[in-house]
Amino acid sequence: MAENKKNTPAADTPKKPQYRRRKPKAKPVAAPKAQKPAEPEKTAEKKAKYTPPKAKRSKRKSPQKPVITSKIKIASLGGLHEIGKNMTMIEYEDDIIVIDCGVAFPDEDMLGIDLVTPDITYLEKNKDKIRGILLTHGHEDHIGSLPYALRSINPDIYGTKLTVGIVERKLEEHKLPEKPRLHAVNAGDRVKLGKLEAEFIHVNHSIADACALAIRTPLGILFHTGDFKLDTTPVDGNMMDITRIGEIGNEGVLLLMCESTNAERPGFTPSERKVGRSLANIFERYSDMRIVIATFSSNVHRVQQIISLSAAHGRKVAVLGRSMVNIIEAASELGYMQVPDGVLIDIKDVGRYPENKVTLITTGSQGEPMSALYRLAFGAHDRMTLGGKDLVVISATAIPGNEKSVGKIINALIASGVNVIHDPETDVHVSGHACREELKLMHALTRPQYFMPVHGELRHLDAHRHLAMEMGMASENIFVSEIGKVLEIGQDGARFSGTVPSGKVLIDGIGVGDVGNIVLRDRKHLSQDGVIIVVAAVDPDGGFIVSGPDIISRGFVYVRESEELMDAARTIARDAIENSLYMGKSDWGEIKNNVRDALAKFLYQRTHRKPMIIPVIMNV
Amino acid sequence: MAENKKNTPAADTPKKPQYRRRKPKAKPVAAPKAQKPAEPEKTAEKKAKYTPPKAKRSKRKSPQKPVITSKIKIASLGGLHEIGKNMTMIEYEDDIIVIDCGVAFPDEDMLGIDLVTPDITYLEKNKDKIRGILLTHGHEDHIGSLPYALRSINPDIYGTKLTVGIVERKLEEHKLPEKPRLHAVNAGDRVKLGKLEAEFIHVNHSIADACALAIRTPLGILFHTGDFKLDTTPVDGNMMDITRIGEIGNEGVLLLMCESTNAERPGFTPSERKVGRSLANIFERYSDMRIVIATFSSNVHRVQQIISLSAAHGRKVAVLGRSMVNIIEAASELGYMQVPDGVLIDIKDVGRYPENKVTLITTGSQGEPMSALYRLAFGAHDRMTLGGKDLVVISATAIPGNEKSVGKIINALIASGVNVIHDPETDVHVSGHACREELKLMHALTRPQYFMPVHGELRHLDAHRHLAMEMGMASENIFVSEIGKVLEIGQDGARFSGTVPSGKVLIDGIGVGDVGNIVLRDRKHLSQDGVIIVVAAVDPDGGFIVSGPDIISRGFVYVRESEELMDAARTIARDAIENSLYMGKSDWGEIKNNVRDALAKFLYQRTHRKPMIIPVIMNV
Repeated sequence: MAENKKNTPAADTPKKPQYRRRKPKAKPVAAPKAQKPAEPEKTAEKKAKYTPPKAKRSKRKSPQKPVITSKIKIASLGGLHEIGKNMTMIEYEDDIIVIDCGVAFPDEDMLGIDLVTPDITYLEKNKDKIRGILLTHGHEDHIGSLPYALRSINPDIYGTKLTVGIVERKLEEHKLPEKPRLHAVNAGDRVKLGKLEAEFIHVNHSIADACALAIRTPLGILFHTGDFKLDTTPVDGNMMDITRIGEIGNEGVLLLMCESTNAERPGFTPSERKVGRSLANIFERYSDMRIVIATFSSNVHRVQQIISLSAAHGRKVAVLGRSMVNIIEAASELGYMQVPDGVLIDIKDVGRYPENKVTLITTGSQGEPMSALYRLAFGAHDRMTLGGKDLVVISATAIPGNEKSVGKIINALIASGVNVIHDPETDVHVSGHACREELKLMHALTRPQYFMPVHGELRHLDAHRHLAMEMGMASENIFVSEIGKVLEIGQDGARFSGTVPSGKVLIDGIGVGDVGNIVLRDRKHLSQDGVIIVVAAVDPDGGFIVSGPDIISRGFVYVRESEELMDAARTIARDAIENSLYMGKSDWGEIKNNVRDALAKFLYQRTHRKPMIIPVIMNV
Repeated sequence: MAENKKNTPAADTPKKPQYRRRKPKAKPVAAPKAQKPAEPEKTAEKKAKYTPPKAKRSKRKSPQKPVITSKIKIASLGGLHEIGKNMTMIEYEDDIIVIDCGVAFPDEDMLGIDLVTPDITYLEKNKDKIRGILLTHGHEDHIGSLPYALRSINPDIYGTKLTVGIVERKLEEHKLPEKPRLHAVNAGDRVKLGKLEAEFIHVNHSIADACALAIRTPLGILFHTGDFKLDTTPVDGNMMDITRIGEIGNEGVLLLMCESTNAERPGFTPSERKVGRSLANIFERYSDMRIVIATFSSNVHRVQQIISLSAAHGRKVAVLGRSMVNIIEAASELGYMQVPDGVLIDIKDVGRYPENKVTLITTGSQGEPMSALYRLAFGAHDRMTLGGKDLVVISATAIPGNEKSVGKIINALIASGVNVIHDPETDVHVSGHACREELKLMHALTRPQYFMPVHGELRHLDAHRHLAMEMGMASENIFVSEIGKVLEIGQDGARFSGTVPSGKVLIDGIGVGDVGNIVLRDRKHLSQDGVIIVVAAVDPDGGFIVSGPDIISRGFVYVRESEELMDAARTIARDAIENSLYMGKSDWGEIKNNVRDALAKFLYQRTHRKPMIIPVIMNV
């Protein structure tokens, strides 16, 4: 993509006067390359500067800096007090930039809801100010709301090649009012966005080409980690660019926004290569079987390891599941995956090879109904059946809430005689998120003045807050925020100040936002004890019942075995209507209430259930 | 209770000729005492006899034993391919005994269901044969279906003192047709049950007074472990009676039925005392705070440790949650818990003591809505509020499916400034179930001829099967069964043979079994996209619409913002009815189908949703 070249004129950025730099002349002007070896004299300088955070703090508040009265406003529209729909907005004067635009999956109490997206009212109202959406990586919880957001706004979108490749394929499935303005960048690139500038910095994660972002503002650098882990032996050889992060730390970080997913977990997250070793053992040990591996489609390195292992063992590889096929296609095209010639075969040709010469890679590692693995497990796949000659490896950990679905699949596979290896037994999965020691490393490298934990439920944000305090940060410099809450940073300090609109916009079918609390409450009520409908036709003068009342129930009791109950309910309803008419009630709302109350009382006495009761009185 | 004395005439049992014994004269006749030290010469004999299982097998099939043509039938009515509602039936000639009578909690697809109980049709039909229900311990998944089963059968029920104490309190809440016939026994007691005899053997578990059962039959001993773990340092000092289990193993076990809950977990389950040490550290460290500990009410030893620690730290203890109050009452009365005088205080008096002189013990460790902890977390408890001076310890692990509910409580507590300690961080919980090494010990002690893994989903039963094979058992001697499937054992061997009725009986309110698949399917449908009701009154000759159609929706869209959609739907419905009438359709079923089809198509096009559509046509 050509556009990004225009946007990253590395040579002119450092001369802009509005950049406050702690060491204005120490840095060369060129955009840094990933993994550039540090110069020896710089290393020495760095060591000398590695003083505890508090000492740094006081230096930065020296009085000689230029006076700036404008403030930076930071508000997350998603990703705080929740897992998913990550989206953070940064506003400075007339410029807004947005980091990520993710989607969340519905809670178990959001009945019938497909997806949850952030409320972007504030961005819609200020769309002329938006200088860009910056994507840290291509996971759904960071890009999944783009198809919905782009219905009402259409700013430039920046991300690394793989991220943009995934977004392009995703947006093709949606009708959008305007052509999306996607720009591919490389780690190391800087993008000018009004008075702000973003630098993409390579990190490790469970998807290739993930980045952290350093946002340069007139008041200082805001550092957003995106999702990350430190992998010293990554599959593609590119370790997280901790050198560059350290350099930025030396420049001085005003605010660190750091992900908190694993903030409760001690230690370091193991390398993705560990999974490769476990899988290699499995390929050795089960050399007489067909091997079926379920994993996250976006984990390009995992999939690469499986393909390489298969090729080494003379196995053909077939891919199941649309998202898996899409990602392998995108990643291969863009050079993120090397597939040896002749290894990939079509699923319909699997039968032409002996079982022990085939590997299947499939979606469904979270137990998703109708995923390829689900259909395989329940014998509902149209091209494949599994049995005693198959080994299924579930190379993933169940996300909280999915344990039971994954368990059902494991049970169904075992019932078909399939051999199953899943996470707790063997190291066939590692997390993509930093554990506590890696988070500490990030804090130690960036040594921020202020800190806002992001990406997580409150428990994670709070654990991260404690971690920062253990690292020596003062409690008043740590801001545990909520979606919509504005953190304002000026030369006089940082504080919470006001809010912007925020919330959960529910997607149900093609409806966006038309399902709210009332509808969900009704669905919940209906789901618990079903519905009873009472229909009667009444004389126009309101004197007597012309027809009915009929009683119809769904989801309440098995009607054929409850005739006596339903007959009694009809009598109760008739009495309630007739009494109301006899009392001269002409307000049909009141008649309906009487019917509802009488029936509710009767049905609760008889069944201890509380179905939704809908009386319909027709005037004929 | 006096009854059990009659039923355990230890002196006369060994003389019965129908007992097949491997060493008929080696055993003294007295009922064994728990933890009786083994006599030296017996130990020597045992060691000499500790040969691999296969060698034992062949000996047992020696031809000199008496010819018995009757067979033992074993069928589980619950607890196989599922967690919970444990219930196993053993039938020999005219005698049936039942082990446990548990309840299960509904799956997430059983909308509105409160509890799941086993189908006991077979027991109802054979109620005269039932010689007793034997309870291994007092957990809900082993006793919870008694109030429902006792509506149709009323056999003698045997259990240890605490188990019977818990059952008594439980049954008081239910109206039963007859007085239940409860008999308290002690570990070590034998109960004669027709031609069968049961011996209760002490095991460790997360409730006090748990037992395994050795069932003597004319064909040999059936050994049922119940739920167990090996705790070498139990809180009450009573280790699982592995000596007695070993003696029974030496006698010869025909069939082992062993629980499988942790059959996937390597190693040993830690001692309950480990939790005590962790809690002691917490009491030291948080000596300036009120400590609130949520745990399972039935974990008498855990509660005992909390009370003892509190007393040692000069703290008063208040108890929250009805089931917690009940259990502490029962356990104290029966001597299973020692509460020092003056330690327990009423919840209403908590405010009279400084925070750091009070401990609260509460239910709700699984995140159950409306439990005491839930109400505390969401500020909805009428007597208590928690804040920055409180530490909440969740001394439990979330059962699969409950992770999110527990997470919500943790987040809510943190939001109120409460300090929270939960499982992953610290050792504040241990399992009550045997891990793989303990299961191996059980197999090694009992050395059964046949083995049936019980209590678990298929994955657990299958892992247990593999474990038994690793121990040297032949695959054909292992029977992974299903509920209702009959395992028949005779002198000629063991095999599956036929079935008895079995299934899940759903309890909703006070309705037992009146909610089946159709009702659940409707509830599921209603929960996803709501309901649309179309009501019209039609001329008796079927010529024209007299009134309506009216359209009422619940749980579909937010109606006030969807007037245009609802108006269009009304037109579609009117057209469908009028077209049907115009075409001379007099079959109202057909008119309704036309309305349903037309509306479903229209609504799906417009919303991609599929609400339940209920047309009601009235003849006036």
